[in-house]
Amino acid sequence: MSRGKPGPEQLDLTLGLLDCVNARDGYKTASGVDTRNYGLLDGIPEAKEMFADILEVEPSQVIVGGNSSLNLMFDYIAAAYSHGVNGGKPWCREETVKFLCPSPGYDRHFGVTEYFGFELIPVDMTPEGPDMDAVEKYAADPAVKGIWCVPMYSNPDGITYSDETVRRFASMKTAAPDFRIMWDNAYCLHHLTDTPDTLLNLYEEAKKCGTEDRVVIFASTSKVSFPGSGIAVVAGSPKTVADIKQRMNYQTIGYDKLNMLRHVRYFKDADGVREHMKLHAAILRPKFQAVLDALESNLGGKEIAEWNTPRGGYFVSVNVMDGCAKETVRLLKEAGVVMTGAGATYPYGKDPRDRNIRIAPTFPPLEELKTAMELFCVCAELAAAEKLLEA
Amino acid sequence: MSRGKPGPEQLDLTLGLLDCVNARDGYKTASGVDTRNYGLLDGIPEAKEMFADILEVEPSQVIVGGNSSLNLMFDYIAAAYSHGVNGGKPWCREETVKFLCPSPGYDRHFGVTEYFGFELIPVDMTPEGPDMDAVEKYAADPAVKGIWCVPMYSNPDGITYSDETVRRFASMKTAAPDFRIMWDNAYCLHHLTDTPDTLLNLYEEAKKCGTEDRVVIFASTSKVSFPGSGIAVVAGSPKTVADIKQRMNYQTIGYDKLNMLRHVRYFKDADGVREHMKLHAAILRPKFQAVLDALESNLGGKEIAEWNTPRGGYFVSVNVMDGCAKETVRLLKEAGVVMTGAGATYPYGKDPRDRNIRIAPTFPPLEELKTAMELFCVCAELAAAEKLLEA
Repeated sequence: MSRGKPGPEQLDLTLGLLDCVNARDGYKTASGVDTRNYGLLDGIPEAKEMFADILEVEPSQVIVGGNSSLNLMFDYIAAAYSHGVNGGKPWCREETVKFLCPSPGYDRHFGVTEYFGFELIPVDMTPEGPDMDAVEKYAADPAVKGIWCVPMYSNPDGITYSDETVRRFASMKTAAPDFRIMWDNAYCLHHLTDTPDTLLNLYEEAKKCGTEDRVVIFASTSKVSFPGSGIAVVAGSPKTVADIKQRMNYQTIGYDKLNMLRHVRYFKDADGVREHMKLHAAILRPKFQAVLDALESNLGGKEIAEWNTPRGGYFVSVNVMDGCAKETVRLLKEAGVVMTGAGATYPYGKDPRDRNIRIAPTFPPLEELKTAMELFCVCAELAAAEKLLEA
Repeated sequence: MSRGKPGPEQLDLTLGLLDCVNARDGYKTASGVDTRNYGLLDGIPEAKEMFADILEVEPSQVIVGGNSSLNLMFDYIAAAYSHGVNGGKPWCREETVKFLCPSPGYDRHFGVTEYFGFELIPVDMTPEGPDMDAVEKYAADPAVKGIWCVPMYSNPDGITYSDETVRRFASMKTAAPDFRIMWDNAYCLHHLTDTPDTLLNLYEEAKKCGTEDRVVIFASTSKVSFPGSGIAVVAGSPKTVADIKQRMNYQTIGYDKLNMLRHVRYFKDADGVREHMKLHAAILRPKFQAVLDALESNLGGKEIAEWNTPRGGYFVSVNVMDGCAKETVRLLKEAGVVMTGAGATYPYGKDPRDRNIRIAPTFPPLEELKTAMELFCVCAELAAAEKLLEA
């Protein structure tokens, strides 16, 4: 339950993807390009189209990358550090660079900006998304260069940003002209219900305000096809795309086009992907339900834990009693259950209230998950009891 | 004839690779790891072993990456720039960084270091490799941080570095403690004859001198399997490997393991790769011969051009008369033949004598290649005649 990792039965859903590009079925794009060879730096046209539909942008705004959207985000921040964005001052030449980290959030996001020595500023999450009053206040500081966002079914809270939040991101004033919203739409396809959340199109809202260059969008098929062998994309304004392509000319001979073609052939188009995701949801719903049932029946009404009920994404976020997250995770480890480290969902791994624990229900088989959740609840209760006795 | 690009008949040789990892044949490593999912940051063990054999290092010294060795080189230089190497001072904090560029050489190597604003210093190539007197002299400057090398069948000259050259690289004094030899062994498997060149093992020589941390080795299967969908590797000392892995923890969720498994299953082991390369050589030998025959029969003895006779690699390097390379390429373009831009084989695209032209014989069909070479010789002669008339 430690990482957001699909289970083997989910990976079996796309085994056919491995068989659709070969000698028999061919390896050329619709326009006749041999995907085995060099060329098409920004991806094959049909993959750009598929993702443009998913992300609600134009195909020309999409660059299809390798197997890791995290790598595309790292590359974007690395290039901002060494060269600046869109011709601006390199961030490595700034005295201080600060980055906003809605928390609880995704540890690997925070890690990228920590690696480059930025100062990480936690921003509280609300049921509408990040606390926008705080975001706007911080953005008035020219050293604040950007923010990490998982706008749909956020990691780990499962919150989809409200229309109001998206509009405030589009319209807010930023003292830094090169402020960047790292819009990691990792779970845009990962609904758990038949009535999916909807997310306002940040790029369109930003265009209305003339701020579209601040929006950098990421997504991948890591939890659609294969986590190790999916395809990732980055999208943005014409200026942003030109800036990234200019760097890519130096960086790579291009990404794996055979794998892009596999994905396009297998899913056909964005609607094909959307249909496919219903198969994932059918596998995941009982697992999420098992987690929620265990929490409710063991901890409900005891006032020692709160949790969200996600309508999509990969996580259940639990807040145990203040000061009890580390102890709960420690007790679980003693009992043989490995969780994401307590604190991991906060910048520098430090949860100020030591209460948030991220549960990832997707990988374990259902029966194991149920057992682990019983243990989770016992440990959370035990940690709370210890704490109350201390006081 | 502009880029070192395999022809379609070469790519057909490995079509079977696309069919050896799937539901029927399985997708697990020998040790049982599911290659579809997250995990194994530095690659699957069997791929590390295969490349360790090819590069004559230990498997623990190998990191298997994505589809582009250029990307691994870029990442290495980018990390040196932002973070320094092995805990050293970040190169972006240095007043000046200079990098040695044996010339003629590979434009994309030079491009990476140009992108990061380093000062590129050309070093002459000799029949033994780079002019080591010059290299040693430059390395006495602490601002000189490294050198680009294609040690076997060099791009474009086809020169394999002599044992003496390799030993001097291992033993030479460098004023910069973080001097790096970017040892791009791109053509280590790409022999054209039955009596391959041999290259002394730089890493072993460096170990004898205690300089092994300066050696960073790169290779890929771009011209073994598929240029767009091969696998690339970086290898080095334990310190270097630890340094790269530390960065990769922040950078990526790992590289495409399904594709690594495809390669290992298809080629079996390093000997399988070596056998396979004989099939490439059989296709390429007539193409190289056609280029050499055309040069000899049209320009031989006229004292207006010199060329190498490569025993491997991807190029024939021609020196036309001084001041005639650009004009030759221009005339060829008018005749409908696209070449690598004249000057591309020198830092900043500036060939001081305007004489080197890189011919890439691999992609065009043999008959087209013959026609293009006739035109090449006519244009070289015409450019020489114009020049002589000017004088």
